[in-house]
Amino acid sequence: MEADSPNLLSKAKIKLINSLRYPKYRKQHMLFVVEGSINVLDFIASDLVLDVLYASAEWIHAHHRVLPIEKSMAIDARQMKKISALSSPSEVLAVFQMPLSTTIDLETLDELILVLDGIKDPGNMGTIIRTADWFGVKHIICSTDCADAFGSKVVQASMGSLARVKVHSTDLLELMNNRPESWITYGAYLEGDDIQEVSKNNKSLLVIGSEAHGISDYLEFCIDQKINIPMHRDSGAESLNASIATGILCYAFRM
Amino acid sequence: MEADSPNLLSKAKIKLINSLRYPKYRKQHMLFVVEGSINVLDFIASDLVLDVLYASAEWIHAHHRVLPIEKSMAIDARQMKKISALSSPSEVLAVFQMPLSTTIDLETLDELILVLDGIKDPGNMGTIIRTADWFGVKHIICSTDCADAFGSKVVQASMGSLARVKVHSTDLLELMNNRPESWITYGAYLEGDDIQEVSKNNKSLLVIGSEAHGISDYLEFCIDQKINIPMHRDSGAESLNASIATGILCYAFRM
Repeated sequence: MEADSPNLLSKAKIKLINSLRYPKYRKQHMLFVVEGSINVLDFIASDLVLDVLYASAEWIHAHHRVLPIEKSMAIDARQMKKISALSSPSEVLAVFQMPLSTTIDLETLDELILVLDGIKDPGNMGTIIRTADWFGVKHIICSTDCADAFGSKVVQASMGSLARVKVHSTDLLELMNNRPESWITYGAYLEGDDIQEVSKNNKSLLVIGSEAHGISDYLEFCIDQKINIPMHRDSGAESLNASIATGILCYAFRM
Repeated sequence: MEADSPNLLSKAKIKLINSLRYPKYRKQHMLFVVEGSINVLDFIASDLVLDVLYASAEWIHAHHRVLPIEKSMAIDARQMKKISALSSPSEVLAVFQMPLSTTIDLETLDELILVLDGIKDPGNMGTIIRTADWFGVKHIICSTDCADAFGSKVVQASMGSLARVKVHSTDLLELMNNRPESWITYGAYLEGDDIQEVSKNNKSLLVIGSEAHGISDYLEFCIDQKINIPMHRDSGAESLNASIATGILCYAFRM
């Protein structure tokens, strides 16, 4: 196969790639899609395994040094339109193998870990992954009703950080109930102690609740320390966006 | 007009309300649309002037004490679908008069003010308005190429905070060039002094650059102090989302 002359995609390939917009088929094939040059290059540089890459001949030419050329196929813009989920398709679309979900062993870790309870908005989820990466958070543990981390919108909003941050999905009650004693759980609440005043443990689970309902009631008894980002006395706002709150709390933990 | 029996919307009304999705017609009519119960109630409680409100008879009945009933009209879900910009319309849609854009006089102010340079994403813009409100920021000054603050997505993401925070649109170079000497401009850069270490002035203009390009080159000489949110040494992220950076910087300024 020549990587620098445009090829035609088979109907079956087009169908497969489009099916990966749905969690069911991502799970069935254990594949997910990454679009956009920066994003794709970030994923290629990561530990994740590339399945196949489609791009313009120019893009492949410009990046051939970092590409597994046997998995790269040059296609034209018309073909790209048939597989892209973006309204303005980029020059490159890559299919990666989904990492096997691993269980997280708190006994072996000693760091700040994010715990997301019902974050449903893919944009928030992607932004939280990107923010976690900025602050050196390596693991995010999600409740099973969070937005799927490998959905198109999450992958786009994570800006390549999904290639570095490990996202786990699990039963939060079980996780928190069985945490080793050395771990402290912090929960973001509208009423809680000022995050600035709270002493931070090395082994911390920082729990962020859903956009609409905050942290689930059934998890409350697992929270060791309720924390809060103080609102200004002149404010009339009811809450902060979940990803903004996560960003501020990560910053406060890292200070 | 009976507020509790469903009415029919005229074709002209439907056309007018749908036209308000476009900046051109918002400007022409000086009207904008707010949807969703919490949002609408927040705007009704604000200084902004209601033009007309459409809601289910139940919603109007439940909130009749706070509504100008002569401006409220009960419609059914089918009618609502014809005017709502949401894929799942809510029970209420209100049309408000757009506030006249006022010039901001820094001589009379003494506070933290946000300056947005080319924030294009309506979700980011709305989230920044909501975050500003949380931290008691009363004025946001936007470059003329920012997303329109009264667009549907911005109004939704601002969660009612747009009713409290004043959003101005102006030539940033002129604003910053003519600022009184007592004001200090802080600019968010990837290379800058750690925000935690920087002394904060009372009269501060905090400049946030665009999602793609940061602060415009032509504004750089107006920046007194470049600031930065330190990245963790293990991070591979290239940047933070603009609204996340704004949230963290507002928090750091308020500490």
